[in-house]
Amino acid sequence: MFREVWTSAAPLRWGMVGGGQGSEIGYIHRSSACRDGGFKFVAGALDVDAERGREFGVKLGLSPERCYSDYKTMFAEEAKREDGIQAVTICVPNFLHYEVSREALLAGLHVVCEKPLCFTLEEAEELKALAIEKNRMFGVTYGYTGFPMVHQARQMIARGDIGDVRIIKMQFAHGFQTHPVESKSAGTAWRVNPKTSGSTYVLGDLGTHCLYMSQMMVPGLEIEKLLCTRQSFVASRAPLEDNATVLLQYKGGAVGTLWATSVNAGSTHQQKIRVIGSKASIEWWDEHPNQLSYEVQGEPVRILEHGMDYLYLDDEMTASNRMGSGHSEGLFESWSGMYRRFAECCQKLDGGAKLLDVLSGTWVPNILDGVEGVRFVEHCVESADNGSLWVEYI
Amino acid sequence: MFREVWTSAAPLRWGMVGGGQGSEIGYIHRSSACRDGGFKFVAGALDVDAERGREFGVKLGLSPERCYSDYKTMFAEEAKREDGIQAVTICVPNFLHYEVSREALLAGLHVVCEKPLCFTLEEAEELKALAIEKNRMFGVTYGYTGFPMVHQARQMIARGDIGDVRIIKMQFAHGFQTHPVESKSAGTAWRVNPKTSGSTYVLGDLGTHCLYMSQMMVPGLEIEKLLCTRQSFVASRAPLEDNATVLLQYKGGAVGTLWATSVNAGSTHQQKIRVIGSKASIEWWDEHPNQLSYEVQGEPVRILEHGMDYLYLDDEMTASNRMGSGHSEGLFESWSGMYRRFAECCQKLDGGAKLLDVLSGTWVPNILDGVEGVRFVEHCVESADNGSLWVEYI
Amino acid sequence: MFREVWTSAAPLRWGMVGGGQGSEIGYIHRSSACRDGGFKFVAGALDVDAERGREFGVKLGLSPERCYSDYKTMFAEEAKREDGIQAVTICVPNFLHYEVSREALLAGLHVVCEKPLCFTLEEAEELKALAIEKNRMFGVTYGYTGFPMVHQARQMIARGDIGDVRIIKMQFAHGFQTHPVESKSAGTAWRVNPKTSGSTYVLGDLGTHCLYMSQMMVPGLEIEKLLCTRQSFVASRAPLEDNATVLLQYKGGAVGTLWATSVNAGSTHQQKIRVIGSKASIEWWDEHPNQLSYEVQGEPVRILEHGMDYLYLDDEMTASNRMGSGHSEGLFESWSGMYRRFAECCQKLDGGAKLLDVLSGTWVPNILDGVEGVRFVEHCVESADNGSLWVEYI
Amino acid sequence: MFREVWTSAAPLRWGMVGGGQGSEIGYIHRSSACRDGGFKFVAGALDVDAERGREFGVKLGLSPERCYSDYKTMFAEEAKREDGIQAVTICVPNFLHYEVSREALLAGLHVVCEKPLCFTLEEAEELKALAIEKNRMFGVTYGYTGFPMVHQARQMIARGDIGDVRIIKMQFAHGFQTHPVESKSAGTAWRVNPKTSGSTYVLGDLGTHCLYMSQMMVPGLEIEKLLCTRQSFVASRAPLEDNATVLLQYKGGAVGTLWATSVNAGSTHQQKIRVIGSKASIEWWDEHPNQLSYEVQGEPVRILEHGMDYLYLDDEMTASNRMGSGHSEGLFESWSGMYRRFAECCQKLDGGAKLLDVLSGTWVPNILDGVEGVRFVEHCVESADNGSLWVEYI
Repeated sequence: MFREVWTSAAPLRWGMVGGGQGSEIGYIHRSSACRDGGFKFVAGALDVDAERGREFGVKLGLSPERCYSDYKTMFAEEAKREDGIQAVTICVPNFLHYEVSREALLAGLHVVCEKPLCFTLEEAEELKALAIEKNRMFGVTYGYTGFPMVHQARQMIARGDIGDVRIIKMQFAHGFQTHPVESKSAGTAWRVNPKTSGSTYVLGDLGTHCLYMSQMMVPGLEIEKLLCTRQSFVASRAPLEDNATVLLQYKGGAVGTLWATSVNAGSTHQQKIRVIGSKASIEWWDEHPNQLSYEVQGEPVRILEHGMDYLYLDDEMTASNRMGSGHSEGLFESWSGMYRRFAECCQKLDGGAKLLDVLSGTWVPNILDGVEGVRFVEHCVESADNGSLWVEYI
Repeated sequence: MFREVWTSAAPLRWGMVGGGQGSEIGYIHRSSACRDGGFKFVAGALDVDAERGREFGVKLGLSPERCYSDYKTMFAEEAKREDGIQAVTICVPNFLHYEVSREALLAGLHVVCEKPLCFTLEEAEELKALAIEKNRMFGVTYGYTGFPMVHQARQMIARGDIGDVRIIKMQFAHGFQTHPVESKSAGTAWRVNPKTSGSTYVLGDLGTHCLYMSQMMVPGLEIEKLLCTRQSFVASRAPLEDNATVLLQYKGGAVGTLWATSVNAGSTHQQKIRVIGSKASIEWWDEHPNQLSYEVQGEPVRILEHGMDYLYLDDEMTASNRMGSGHSEGLFESWSGMYRRFAECCQKLDGGAKLLDVLSGTWVPNILDGVEGVRFVEHCVESADNGSLWVEYI
Repeated sequence: MFREVWTSAAPLRWGMVGGGQGSEIGYIHRSSACRDGGFKFVAGALDVDAERGREFGVKLGLSPERCYSDYKTMFAEEAKREDGIQAVTICVPNFLHYEVSREALLAGLHVVCEKPLCFTLEEAEELKALAIEKNRMFGVTYGYTGFPMVHQARQMIARGDIGDVRIIKMQFAHGFQTHPVESKSAGTAWRVNPKTSGSTYVLGDLGTHCLYMSQMMVPGLEIEKLLCTRQSFVASRAPLEDNATVLLQYKGGAVGTLWATSVNAGSTHQQKIRVIGSKASIEWWDEHPNQLSYEVQGEPVRILEHGMDYLYLDDEMTASNRMGSGHSEGLFESWSGMYRRFAECCQKLDGGAKLLDVLSGTWVPNILDGVEGVRFVEHCVESADNGSLWVEYI
Repeated sequence: MFREVWTSAAPLRWGMVGGGQGSEIGYIHRSSACRDGGFKFVAGALDVDAERGREFGVKLGLSPERCYSDYKTMFAEEAKREDGIQAVTICVPNFLHYEVSREALLAGLHVVCEKPLCFTLEEAEELKALAIEKNRMFGVTYGYTGFPMVHQARQMIARGDIGDVRIIKMQFAHGFQTHPVESKSAGTAWRVNPKTSGSTYVLGDLGTHCLYMSQMMVPGLEIEKLLCTRQSFVASRAPLEDNATVLLQYKGGAVGTLWATSVNAGSTHQQKIRVIGSKASIEWWDEHPNQLSYEVQGEPVRILEHGMDYLYLDDEMTASNRMGSGHSEGLFESWSGMYRRFAECCQKLDGGAKLLDVLSGTWVPNILDGVEGVRFVEHCVESADNGSLWVEYI
C-alpha cells in the first residue's frame, strides 16, 4: 500500500512571509513544503524584527541577502533575480493576509496563505479574481485534509456507501483559551484582538477548518441558511468569541451543526466530523487520524485503518499514503500531502493550464475554499450580531 | 466502598399498568422495583389483551384474580382489598400517561410514570397539583440517573470542581430508526404516531433524558430561552421528528446544545453529557457508565472509576453503589437505585411527610422534573414550528 | 432481541453459608440467585458471629429460626423441615469449600460453591464423585461467563469464524494489592494466608477465571503441558503469589499465555481474553462486556454489540440477553444468567435426569470445571515450585 | 512547548546501502535523516539491480555518478572524493548487516544500521570493537524511541514516579503474516528465510524493539535469566518462528514478559510496553504515541499528552517535541528525532570526542544496544531450541 511520494519536476523556488523564530506554524509550513521536493526554501521576510528574521533565516540555510526586512522588499528584490522565488507562503496574522496575498499575486507569484483568508468577502473575491487573472496557484492551508483517511471518507460518501447525507456534525473544540492566557501568550493575543484577527476568533480560526472538511467530504452540499450563536466566556475578548455554535440547513434537506471553541476545558484538540446518511455514518477524528469509523445501521461498527488493502483506493488517496498500515502518520504528513498537491498545481499552471481547470481536477484547499470560508464567517457574524437569527446563505 | 443496598421498611404493595409480555421496559421496571425490597409486585393490568395479560401475570407470580383487564378495574378492585396496592407504575404509550396517572392519584396511589409525562403543560401542572394535594409520591423514570458516577458529577460540580459552568453539551443519538422500521416494529409505530406519542418523538423520548440529566448535574441552572430545529428524515414520520437540535441560553450566560436523534446510523446509544466550566470539564457517557472523565485545563485528563476511595462520597452516592470498583454496573443497577429512592420517598410520605419537602431532600426524578420535561418539549415545538426562532422560556 | 428471562418452575428453597453483612460477594449471590425466580432465599448460616448473622438474615427477610449459627446445624435442622432448603450456596474462605460442599452433598442438597473449588485434586475428585453419586447439581461461580457476548464468542469460534485456534492470551490483572493492604483489609488477609487460601492466591483467585473462560470459549482444547512462574512482590505474602504467569502448550500445537496479578498498579480489573486463529481473532474484555472485537486479518476490525440482529443467536445466548442493544448490562446480569442455568439444571435433576447428561447439554460452570481449576492450580504450583519448569498436564 | 528542531552544524554527507524503489523503510530513512539538516543525501548503492538503483537515485536527486552498483564500489569511490560521504545507512536484509557495517567502519564512515544488528554475538562484538577503534558513530534504528512520550516515561521512572519496578509487559503483535503471504511478498520472503534473516524472525524483527524500549525506559535493569518458546504457525516458516513468548527474570526480583508475533490476526501493530512499579504503572502504546497512561494505585488514571506544560521536561524530551499539544506526531517524527541525535553524535565524534563517552551522555539506539539485541536473540534461540528451558543471561 506504501508508495513513495515525490514530485517529479524540479522544486519551485519558494519564500515565506512570517513564520520566524518560535513560530510553530512556520515550522510546519517549511517542513511540509520541502518534504517531497516540491518547493525549495530560498528567501524569506520571516519576522517583523528584521535582524532577528535575518539571523533565523541564515540558521535555516538562507543566504543572508535573501533574508528581507519586509515582504514588499522581498517581492521587489526577488523579482530582479533570475533565480527569484516562484512561490510564497504567507503565515502572518490574519489582518495582513489580504494585502500580502494581493501583492504576491501582483508580483506573479504562486501563493499559499493561512486561513481565514481575509476579513471581507469583497477582499476574498478580489483575490480570487486576481489569481484567475494572473493564473497563479492560490492554496489555503486547511491542513487536516491531507490525511489519507479523509480522502477515503470523501470517496466512500461519493460512492453512496452511507446513502443520502442527512446530518453533518462538526466540531473543533480545544480548551487552550479557557483562562485569559492572552496576557502571557502573543499567539493568543493577536487572535483575540479584532484589529489583527478580524471579526471573529474561533469561527475563523477553527470553524473554517470544520467547514472545509465538510465541503471536502461532501462536495455537492450547498448551505441554504445558517444561524450562529457566539459567546465570549472570557469577557475581555468581546466582541470576539471564544465559543460558537452554528446550525446549518443545506439545500435538499440535510442539516448540520458546527461547534468551534477554545474554552473546552481539558481538551487538546477534539476536531471531529461525523457524516450521517440514510444507510450508514462515517466519522473521522483528528486524534486518531489514521482510522475511520464506518457504521452501517444494523451491522457491527467497522474501524478502517490507513494503508490496508480493503480501502477503496483512488490516486488521490494513494498519493497521500506514506506508510504501511500500523505505522502512525501525523499532522506533518497531512500537511506534506497538501503541499505536494500545491506544487503539482503550480507545475500545471506553469505548464500552461488554467487555474480553474486545475483546481477542478484535484482535491486541495485553494482560493475558492478560502472565499467560501470568508463567506461562511461573514454569514455567521451577521446571524450572531442580529440576535442569532437565521440568515439566507448567499 | 461497597454497601449492601436494602430498604429498611416493609415493601410497598405495587401494581403495573402496561409492561406486558414482550415489553422490555416492563421487564426493567419489575426487575428494578423489586430489587431492594422496596416494592412487591402483587397486581397488574399488563396488557390491552386481557387474557394475554392474565396469563403473563400468572407466569410472573401474580394471583389470577389480581390480573386485571384494565387499569380502572384494577384501581377499583384493589381499593376494596385490605392488601390492595399502594403504588403503581405506568408504562403505557405516552397518550395514556395523563389519564392513568390522574386516576391513580385519585385512587390514592403512589405513582411512577414513564416519560415524557404527558402531552401538555396544563395536564402536567394538573398532575403536579393533584400529587401535592393527595400527598402521593410521583416518580418519573429518567432511568439513567441512578448511576453512582452521575451523582459524583453533580457533587463535583456543586463543589466548584469545574469552576463556573459555561457550556453544556448533551446528546442522545442512536440510529435504530434510520430506516422506516415502524412498518415492522410496534414499539416504533406508536412512537412516531402523534395520536399515541404526542407532539414530538425524539424530543420527548430522548431529549427529556438529556434535559433531566443536565438539571440533575447542574441544579441551579435556569433556561432563559431556547431554539429548536427538527427534521423527519423518514418523511412519513412528519410532523413527528426523528432528529432535533436545541440551542439553550441559560440565565447568567451559560449556553447549551442538545441533540436528540434516532437516525444516527450505526449508533446504538450515544447518550453523553459534557459540562464545561471555567476551570475544568466533566463528561459522562452511558456506554461507560462507571467512569467519569474529569479534565482540568492544563492537567492530564483523569478517568474516575466508580467504587474507588478517591471519590467524593456523600450518602446519595454511596447508596447508589452496589459493587466494588472494577465490577461493571449496568442500566439495571441505575434503575434499581432510582426505584429504591422512589420507595424511600413513598415511605416518608406514608409516615406523614409532605411531598415537596421530601422531594427537596433527595435526588430522584419526580413530578416536578416531569413537568419541566413537558415544558421543555412545548417550548421546543413552539420554536420548531415557528421557523426555529428563539422562544423565551417561561 | 430482548427476551424476558424467567424460570418456568417454582423456585428452589435456597440457603447460604457465608455471605454475611459487608460481604460483597454474598450480595451478588443473593441478587443473582433470586433474580429470575429460580431460587428463593429461606435460610442461612451467614456469619461466624452467629448473632450478627441472625440479625442480618432477618434484615434480609429470613425467619429468625432459619438463621443458623453454623452450616452443620443448618443442614441438620433444614433436613427436618418439610419446607427445608433444596439448594445451598457456599461463599466462605477457600479452606472451607471442601468440607462444607461435602456435607451439603451428603445432606442431599444442590450446591453452588465459590472458586477455587478446594485445595487438592483429590478433594475435588471426591466432590465430583459424590455429586454424581448423589445426583445433585454442583455449580462453581465463574461469574463472568453469563455475559451474552462470551457465549457469542464461543459460538463463533465453534463455527470456524476465526479458523484454527493458534494462540490464547488470557489475563486478569488488577492492582488492588499493590500495597500490603492485608493489614487493614480482612478480605485480603485471608486470601494471602495459606491456611485459609490454599497453596496459591492469584492463580486460584484470578487465574482460574481465565482458565474457565478459555475452556468455555474453546471447549475442545486440551492442555498438554504448562510452565508457571510466580512472585510475591509484597514479600510477606510468600509463599502465596501476588503475580503469576503461565505458559500453556495445548495438544495439537496451539499455545497460551495466562497472566494473573493483583499488583498491576492502577488497574481496577483488566480481565481479557483474546483467541487468535488462522483467519481472525476474537477478543472480549470485561470492562466493555457488551462488546466483542472480531478481527479478520485483512479486513476492518468489527465491534459486535450485544442485542443486535446480526449476532449468531442460539438459545443459550438469547437466554442470556436481558436488554436491547445500547443498554448496558453489568456483572449482575452475568451472574443472574449463570444462576438461572444453575436452577434449570437443578430442576432437570429433580425431574430425574442424570448429572453428567445435564451438564453435557448446557454451558454453565460446574463441578467438572471446578475440578479442572484445581488441577490447573496444582500443576502451576508444581511447576513454580520446581524452578518454573514445564510439567506434563495430567 | 514547541521548539524548532534544527541541527546547528553543517549536514553530514550521507549515503545509503539498500532502500531502493518500493522500499518503505528506505523512504523512512531518507525522510528522517534529512529532516533536520543533520544529513545530506549524496550517494547510494540503493538496489541489487544497479540500473534500477541508478534510475531511482537520480529521481531522488543524486548525481548519476554517485549511484553505485554495490556498496563496495560506493565506499571505494566515495573515499576518493573530497566531498565523499561521511556517513552511511544500511538497510539491506539482515544477512548483510555484518559485512556492510564492517566495511563501512573500515572505510571510516559513521554507520546507521537496521536491526537486528547481525547474526551472532561474535559478529556484534566485533562491530562494537571496530566502532570504538575507529571512533565512528554506530546507530541502530530502533525507531520508536524518538517519541517524546517514551522519553517522558523514562524520566518519570528514573524519578521514582512509579516506585520500584516490578513487572514489565512488552508486546509487538501484528497479524500481517497470519497467512503464508511470503509467496507473494518479497519483503516477507527474506524475513522468513534463515539464510537472509538469521536464526529468528519475529524475535529479531519485533522482539528486539520491545527489548530496547524496556532498556531505554528502565536503563538499570539487567536480565538474569530468560526462557523462550516459539512457534511457526505457518509450518513452512520453520525453523523461523512467527510467534514467540519470552519470560524474563531480572536481577533484583523484577520480571518481564515479551510477546512478539506476526500472526496476531486482525492487528496492525499493537506494540505496547507497560512498566508496573510498587506505586504506579506507566504504559505507552504505539497506536497512541503522543499519550502516556500514568496509573497511580488508588488514584484516577491520568492520560498525559505530549506538548503540555505539566510534563517533566528535560532537554532530551524537549528536543524530541516538534509540535504543540493536540497536534498528532507520527512515526516520521520519532525517526527524525532519532536521526537528529545520530547527527549530533557524529558531530561530537568529528569534534574529537570518544564514542563511549558520547553514547553515555545521550539516549539514542546505538551499537551497544545492537549488541544487546543480538545477545538477547541468541539466548532466546538457545532456550527455545532446548525445550524452552531457562538460560542464564550472560
